[in-house]
Amino acid sequence: MGSCCEKVCGVVCISPGDSSGVSNSGESSKESSRCSTPVLDTDRTDRLRDKMKRRIESGDHWFSLEFFPPRTASGAVNLISRFDRMGSGGPLFIDVTWHPAGDPGSDKETSSMMIASTAVNYCGLESVLHLTCCNQTKEKITAHLNKAKRLGLKNIMALRGDPIGEDWVEEDGGFNYATDLVKHIRCEFDDYFDICVAGYPTGHPEAESYDNDLRHLKEKVDAGAHFIVTQLFFRAETFLRFVKDCRAIGITCPILPGIFPIQGYHSLRQLVKLSKLEVPEEIMQVIEPIKDNDAAIRSYGIQQAVEMCKVLLASGEVPGLHFYTLNREVATIEVLRQLGLWAEDPRRPLPWAVSAHPKRKVEDVRPIFWASRPKSYIYRTQDWDDFPNGRWGNSSSPAFGELTDYYLFYLKSKSPKEALLQMWGEELMNEGSVYEVFTNYITGQTNPSGHKVMCLPWNDDPLAPETNLLKDELEKVNRRGILTINSQPNINGKPSSDPIVGWGPAGGYVFQKAYLEFFTSSENVTALLQVLKKYEPRVNYHIVNVQGKNITNAHEMQPNAVTWGIFPGREIIQPTVVDPVSFMYWKDEAFALWIEQWAKLYEDESPSRMIIQYIHDNYFLVNLVDNDFPLDSCLWQVIEDMFALLDSPRETQEEGSQL
Amino acid sequence: MGSCCEKVCGVVCISPGDSSGVSNSGESSKESSRCSTPVLDTDRTDRLRDKMKRRIESGDHWFSLEFFPPRTASGAVNLISRFDRMGSGGPLFIDVTWHPAGDPGSDKETSSMMIASTAVNYCGLESVLHLTCCNQTKEKITAHLNKAKRLGLKNIMALRGDPIGEDWVEEDGGFNYATDLVKHIRCEFDDYFDICVAGYPTGHPEAESYDNDLRHLKEKVDAGAHFIVTQLFFRAETFLRFVKDCRAIGITCPILPGIFPIQGYHSLRQLVKLSKLEVPEEIMQVIEPIKDNDAAIRSYGIQQAVEMCKVLLASGEVPGLHFYTLNREVATIEVLRQLGLWAEDPRRPLPWAVSAHPKRKVEDVRPIFWASRPKSYIYRTQDWDDFPNGRWGNSSSPAFGELTDYYLFYLKSKSPKEALLQMWGEELMNEGSVYEVFTNYITGQTNPSGHKVMCLPWNDDPLAPETNLLKDELEKVNRRGILTINSQPNINGKPSSDPIVGWGPAGGYVFQKAYLEFFTSSENVTALLQVLKKYEPRVNYHIVNVQGKNITNAHEMQPNAVTWGIFPGREIIQPTVVDPVSFMYWKDEAFALWIEQWAKLYEDESPSRMIIQYIHDNYFLVNLVDNDFPLDSCLWQVIEDMFALLDSPRETQEEGSQL
Repeated sequence: MGSCCEKVCGVVCISPGDSSGVSNSGESSKESSRCSTPVLDTDRTDRLRDKMKRRIESGDHWFSLEFFPPRTASGAVNLISRFDRMGSGGPLFIDVTWHPAGDPGSDKETSSMMIASTAVNYCGLESVLHLTCCNQTKEKITAHLNKAKRLGLKNIMALRGDPIGEDWVEEDGGFNYATDLVKHIRCEFDDYFDICVAGYPTGHPEAESYDNDLRHLKEKVDAGAHFIVTQLFFRAETFLRFVKDCRAIGITCPILPGIFPIQGYHSLRQLVKLSKLEVPEEIMQVIEPIKDNDAAIRSYGIQQAVEMCKVLLASGEVPGLHFYTLNREVATIEVLRQLGLWAEDPRRPLPWAVSAHPKRKVEDVRPIFWASRPKSYIYRTQDWDDFPNGRWGNSSSPAFGELTDYYLFYLKSKSPKEALLQMWGEELMNEGSVYEVFTNYITGQTNPSGHKVMCLPWNDDPLAPETNLLKDELEKVNRRGILTINSQPNINGKPSSDPIVGWGPAGGYVFQKAYLEFFTSSENVTALLQVLKKYEPRVNYHIVNVQGKNITNAHEMQPNAVTWGIFPGREIIQPTVVDPVSFMYWKDEAFALWIEQWAKLYEDESPSRMIIQYIHDNYFLVNLVDNDFPLDSCLWQVIEDMFALLDSPRETQEEGSQL
Repeated sequence: MGSCCEKVCGVVCISPGDSSGVSNSGESSKESSRCSTPVLDTDRTDRLRDKMKRRIESGDHWFSLEFFPPRTASGAVNLISRFDRMGSGGPLFIDVTWHPAGDPGSDKETSSMMIASTAVNYCGLESVLHLTCCNQTKEKITAHLNKAKRLGLKNIMALRGDPIGEDWVEEDGGFNYATDLVKHIRCEFDDYFDICVAGYPTGHPEAESYDNDLRHLKEKVDAGAHFIVTQLFFRAETFLRFVKDCRAIGITCPILPGIFPIQGYHSLRQLVKLSKLEVPEEIMQVIEPIKDNDAAIRSYGIQQAVEMCKVLLASGEVPGLHFYTLNREVATIEVLRQLGLWAEDPRRPLPWAVSAHPKRKVEDVRPIFWASRPKSYIYRTQDWDDFPNGRWGNSSSPAFGELTDYYLFYLKSKSPKEALLQMWGEELMNEGSVYEVFTNYITGQTNPSGHKVMCLPWNDDPLAPETNLLKDELEKVNRRGILTINSQPNINGKPSSDPIVGWGPAGGYVFQKAYLEFFTSSENVTALLQVLKKYEPRVNYHIVNVQGKNITNAHEMQPNAVTWGIFPGREIIQPTVVDPVSFMYWKDEAFALWIEQWAKLYEDESPSRMIIQYIHDNYFLVNLVDNDFPLDSCLWQVIEDMFALLDSPRETQEEGSQL
């Protein structure tokens, strides 16, 4: 298959039939009258090469981060958290290395393919997948590329890779050089992938000569590569001479220096051995005397990298810096901070993390319910071809993914069972024990056994800065059994650059309606419903139990926008809504988390487990929205009125239960 | 065709093939992810019978208005203006009578068909078209109904009509009674039309007996009519007895009393003669002595109608009142005002008048450019099947209707040529004469020849209340050759019930970005462009001349929302935008109006004509939007800066013209 193309590269080839139609259909999604998002943030829709071009034109330096795939599942969970943290600093892209011995193209949670896919789809990062071709068949390579395409990956770092074993010889018509891989990608996939290739500032260790190596690099670029990332080096002049030499022989694409902040004596030794690089004398002289002092070496490494990067950036030859992170974050972030490249206050294009999958590029609105579980939302909607899928209510479109499918490793709690028990209680006495857990999560105080509650089944992370604004009120109501899992304050036109609630392009204004989502007992709900009559039509409510008994004053099909923004020269953006249809899908997930994440920590039939089961079976999930966003939120008053009614003599309460 | 159906009515018949597919395709327009408008205002999408049902259930009394088609084209222009004025009072529907002798189904601007179509499409009024069947072939009737459907009409008043000539005899299988017409409509068009039939509180003049007539009415309703409007009457008890008798024989649909406020002695005499009704003695006794005093009779008629209507409404039997207006407005409006049924502050569902054509029911956004020419916009987009037509920019969709087509009578100026010359100048001396006309339009002052400028080619009506807010600023700039044709102030969250700028459901907030649209000289534009650099990105501009030279800092495909509203339990509504694509269509229209409406008032080659032609050929059309809606508009400052630059010594201006 496809071998006919080998000799005619440059001519457009027909891509062989494959299942990539899935992502194609997303790409060419039907014309829609909504046009806000594609233009909202051109960065989201452009190809990597276009983003680089724009940043180069505007003189806006960038950075990128290289990671290797983890060895274990818990390592994968940690790496993905790191993606989220380091992603917030604003890398132009990240890349994931490829080690043929590690089954890199498999569906294992630790494979290069799955890690890169997670970075794109769940962390919203522009990602480059490495791919090596040495000792591979064309069919295998094509299959990897098709899979990458299907998963939403759009960029490949094309490498030869190290021959396995000593007796490797060039094969006729096989993949002997990265150039062959570049040609193959362009031939089989036309212009679909952006392609990166490796440059060697001191020449490839196996190259006959530096000049010969430069010619090879020129061939790779001429075959269709879009940019070059270099091997690490220790002196700015090494890189700058290399760039000059590249330009001299007609290489015009971006060339990104590979930066390696020295982080320890042994990792440096190992790297040098593998890469066959020589560490300059002036560096060895500093390091040797402190080789047993990790902190001192790292501190030196940071300083050395910062100095070198400053020279590089000042040269005018370097549009962006590529960091070899070794999957660590402290040193790289510190270097970036000192260089002023780390986005301390990252601009959020939307209030939720945008997936980088190309078929989701038109996604511009999500239900609020998954605000603390965005990966779950992405997972459950991954089969959709358009966003929002007929506003979630179109029965002819694919529904939300099944709950039973989604307990993938990256949706699990990051904490081990023991830690969860410490946080949520080795033994629960009654419902009040549960109220305490929620309250401690809000306040950040330690529980009786001395542990902080860092997460809840519905909230994998500590309280958001925005939710912190509501902390006192939240504490008060959780203490009394209003078990809050999601909330936001009202916002009446804050600048889009606001560090806590801002999002979207500069010069705009963002708005929010206050909302509150919580579990509470049916007794509370009965009183609440009576109180809510006084708040019509100001407050919209959705109240549902696990059986699906659903009480609402909202239109059955009408979403309620709760976050929106107004920007110069743009249409209104309304990225989050409370919508009645998806609420019923969320309800299943929200109730299931009681059992799957909490009850199952305890033995069958144990009192603790039965308490959680009781809450699961009897409590209601309540969502309240205060529509009057310019006024102070009335939702706290609603709750207070509810408690006042419950505390009042029986006769002032309405006759009979409404439930 | 279709005669097979006659005996099997009640069984669903297949509608015969016809060109009504046009409106069908609008009806079943493709699923869209936008769902704001259909739910925004259920009133707009429901059928007339549903609206009545809801109003009856909520005890909310309504009124409706009957008109007859005009005899002349200028009468038609007047009647349409009356539709706009009387439509603002909030009728549930209007109806247009049908006179077989007057070619009522033709395309003439005065035909019943075209008047009803105009009411629906251009005035946004729920409309009922009368149709008589006596002496008509089935084919002719079906053709009328198909045409009505195609034009967006959804309601028919089914009447027998008066036989033409004395020698009329019943035809076998022909249309002898209104019942036959009702059956035919239901048979050929299934449930498509809402059907109204006539009731006679004192019995039909030709009926054998009152009871016999009631039985006929029962037959009409059983054949498929949805509601009844009665012949006029003079005593409340006449109607109330009639309703009681109807209910007694099982007529359950709404029965609306026909109200005729006596407006003059002669019109009363004529009506009585035609309808063979008797005027009660107590009324004649009042009227006879004052028969030559029109004002006194009208005053009495108003008082008499108000008293009778109060009794009717108080009876609990009357959900709404139907007024025989005789195409006059004073008396009917006064009666409605006294009854408290006239909507003094009509709730606008959107800031522009919504068309009542069923295929436009999803329309929820329009370009601002046609703000003062909404009928032109509707006309130019009448061939569209979806709104907004791929945001106006989709080349595969039908484009805006050609300018050459749209000079229909109802898009012409309402004023005759003489009046226009008096307002706009019998003779223009120079461009300054034109500035004066614009300035006088803004200020409302008389021009040197003593006439007020009540309209401009781009503004058929006096200044809107909202524009009045900007009056002083507008006067100042028009005086200096900034010839404004469209503007709005910024609004930062006023209640949706605000009498001047409010629209949409209660309990919401409306917002606006300030904008300004004007013609001005190329010298001014050169200075303006230099000034605008200081206002980036706060101000978006579109500047174009008649040749299409287009200067803008806006994204080529991105509309800028300039009016939006936030409502309880709803998505954001953004009904008006400044959009780059439709601006270029508007530009053609805006420039053409200089020539078509103004220049052509003057002789060929006359200096006046040449002045207008010069402006048309050399001026630019400028649109400015101030994106920073929470702050005071900066647009006046922009204009001042422009004049300051023009007034400054040459060297401070930039070298060379930018145009």
